[in-house]
Amino acid sequence: MPGDSMDKPNTVTCTAPVNIAVIKYWGKRNEELILPINSSLSVTLHQDQLKTTTTVATSRSFQEDRIWLNGKEEDITHPRLQSCLREIRRLARKRRNDGDPALDSMGFSHKVHICSINDFPTAAGLASSAAGFACLVYTLSRVFDVEGELSGIARQGSGSACRSMYGGFVQWIMGQKDDGKDSLAQQVAPETHWPELRVLVLVVSFAERKPVGSTSGMQTSVQTSRLLKHRAESVVPGRMVKMIEAVQRKDFTAFAELTMKDSNQFHATCLDTYPPIFYLSSVSQQVINLVHRYNRHYGETRVAYTFDAGPNAVIYMLQQHVPEFVQAVQHFFPPESNGGQFVKGLPVNHVALSEELRRSIGLEPLPKGISYVISTKVGPGPCVVEDPTQHLLGSDGLPKETV
Amino acid sequence: MPGDSMDKPNTVTCTAPVNIAVIKYWGKRNEELILPINSSLSVTLHQDQLKTTTTVATSRSFQEDRIWLNGKEEDITHPRLQSCLREIRRLARKRRNDGDPALDSMGFSHKVHICSINDFPTAAGLASSAAGFACLVYTLSRVFDVEGELSGIARQGSGSACRSMYGGFVQWIMGQKDDGKDSLAQQVAPETHWPELRVLVLVVSFAERKPVGSTSGMQTSVQTSRLLKHRAESVVPGRMVKMIEAVQRKDFTAFAELTMKDSNQFHATCLDTYPPIFYLSSVSQQVINLVHRYNRHYGETRVAYTFDAGPNAVIYMLQQHVPEFVQAVQHFFPPESNGGQFVKGLPVNHVALSEELRRSIGLEPLPKGISYVISTKVGPGPCVVEDPTQHLLGSDGLPKETV
Repeated sequence: MPGDSMDKPNTVTCTAPVNIAVIKYWGKRNEELILPINSSLSVTLHQDQLKTTTTVATSRSFQEDRIWLNGKEEDITHPRLQSCLREIRRLARKRRNDGDPALDSMGFSHKVHICSINDFPTAAGLASSAAGFACLVYTLSRVFDVEGELSGIARQGSGSACRSMYGGFVQWIMGQKDDGKDSLAQQVAPETHWPELRVLVLVVSFAERKPVGSTSGMQTSVQTSRLLKHRAESVVPGRMVKMIEAVQRKDFTAFAELTMKDSNQFHATCLDTYPPIFYLSSVSQQVINLVHRYNRHYGETRVAYTFDAGPNAVIYMLQQHVPEFVQAVQHFFPPESNGGQFVKGLPVNHVALSEELRRSIGLEPLPKGISYVISTKVGPGPCVVEDPTQHLLGSDGLPKETV
Repeated sequence: MPGDSMDKPNTVTCTAPVNIAVIKYWGKRNEELILPINSSLSVTLHQDQLKTTTTVATSRSFQEDRIWLNGKEEDITHPRLQSCLREIRRLARKRRNDGDPALDSMGFSHKVHICSINDFPTAAGLASSAAGFACLVYTLSRVFDVEGELSGIARQGSGSACRSMYGGFVQWIMGQKDDGKDSLAQQVAPETHWPELRVLVLVVSFAERKPVGSTSGMQTSVQTSRLLKHRAESVVPGRMVKMIEAVQRKDFTAFAELTMKDSNQFHATCLDTYPPIFYLSSVSQQVINLVHRYNRHYGETRVAYTFDAGPNAVIYMLQQHVPEFVQAVQHFFPPESNGGQFVKGLPVNHVALSEELRRSIGLEPLPKGISYVISTKVGPGPCVVEDPTQHLLGSDGLPKETV
């Protein structure tokens, strides 16, 4: 695929997905290599709704490595970017040295231009760095024709990026080695495994404080929270085993309850951090109440929430319950009547909300608490975009005007 | 003191204090005997600002045990009330059987009338049951002339009531025995020990949800929170030692930091409960932010917060910093301009808030977030009220009109 002419850059475009952890990653044992204090497990979301697109071009004529993120040139010397570039080039060089002279033409000694965009608003508060670094590493690997285990490189860009290197249900095994060589992502089940599983992202309206960033938040938690240490050492190992079983058996109840408990425990360790960190807003708390009351009404666990380092909820549920639950969300968080559409992404049928369910939930509605809902499902890992018109960099190696 | 006539009841009135834990009690290992899963430590607040007053009368002419709380007759058969009555009568009987014939006149075979009032609004969300049961047990002990260790009886009314049986700084030693005989309160330092220490109760305006009661909340936490188990077994024992040292050395920094960390850890275990329990409101979180930013501004820990099973903050600080911190509270939680006085209790001098401090804290003011502040200090344990005009029960054994 990659071109070989003197002047025209060798250009590749790929996309990569967002992932949402159901067993949470919080805390590093090695900051530089990004080695975690516990294993974690996530669901890869479908790229039809949420993705990062990255184009990488190499050319003998490029003077230096450059990067544009969401239309703006950024500093290429960022240490985590440098880690990813260095590791991919190391792999490429190794492959050449291992004796394939045809690879000389791949241009891995050339400089790269990188251009990347997210198709989801930053306001969605989704871990854009995971999709971003996964996409960067995957695209670089296609440009330099590097194969094999790449999640360890993505991990050095952003820890949870390693899990976006696979579709479906993915675990990040913490590993034991000091050099991090065994701290890798692994697919637990492919995206076709559990087709009934659906995902809603509830984008909470911002009103409150600026949250603490996850890098510095994790550091403070590792330094100060006794409960985090206990969680990582004594609680998560057993939960990983149970979660993998729940996914493999497609046991929604077990999956859902463990997901909620682990989200709550992660936020508990944030509160046990000194000074404490609050990621859940009053709207988040109301979503939690709504889910528990909805489940209580039916006497079974039909819906699960999880929250990362921000107030937005991610909801897991089986397909058949989506229309009613979306109505419940819309009822208890009435949107602006003149706003855009409330539900984006996969279409959701309209159903009526029974008076009985409404009364049984019995919460005070919180107008405009949720801006909108993204309806999506489990999806595949990074993909190459074959259509060259989709490149974000032009034949001059610079971002196209449309970006 | 107690009277002895046939018709006139033997009447005693006592007062007892509120206590605020700095190492928190959350979780019972025995529900009936109220034995905790960890030791705890509290500060007894001064009764000039917050107290319960209880009058107990006994008379040969009373037909049955009766109780009036805050002007309303309540069910005397409540199991915890019955535990306290039974235990005091057992002690009284034991004392007679041990051979003091003069005690025959105490009338402990007689029925009792009990009348109790709190001088603080329920809205203050202070653990009124602790002061209430401490006052009940103390007053019964005076009526029946029972002496010795009474905290084990108060504990059976409401766990934290045992700590209100002493002034100053009080630990509740969890004990090891199955019968609870060694689960008792003990004074760590008297109320005169640290006269510079001051206390502010920030009464948060209610707006949000009804909280889960502490009895059922504790049960759910014990059943579901792995972090609570770890806290009780592995964190609290070390913290008790450190807190006792901090109190004895009057080391405000150590006292304050441990107080905040333990409050946060208690609320973390509530969040780790399934379903999770939220006691901190967005106003509580803002108080936490205010305290940390205030301390950061000065580069030292001048102020500490602690929160029980509700949104109200209790603030500990040294006397010299009270005026400025109260101004900061008033600035960042502007009260209703036509409301009553914002600061009740011990007078607080007015000082100006520097522009520099205001900017350094840099929070968005939350109008009416705090209804009022009670300014108080460390105080003594239960007291007998000698003035008979203060009795809440008249000579007929019924509540006086004024109650």
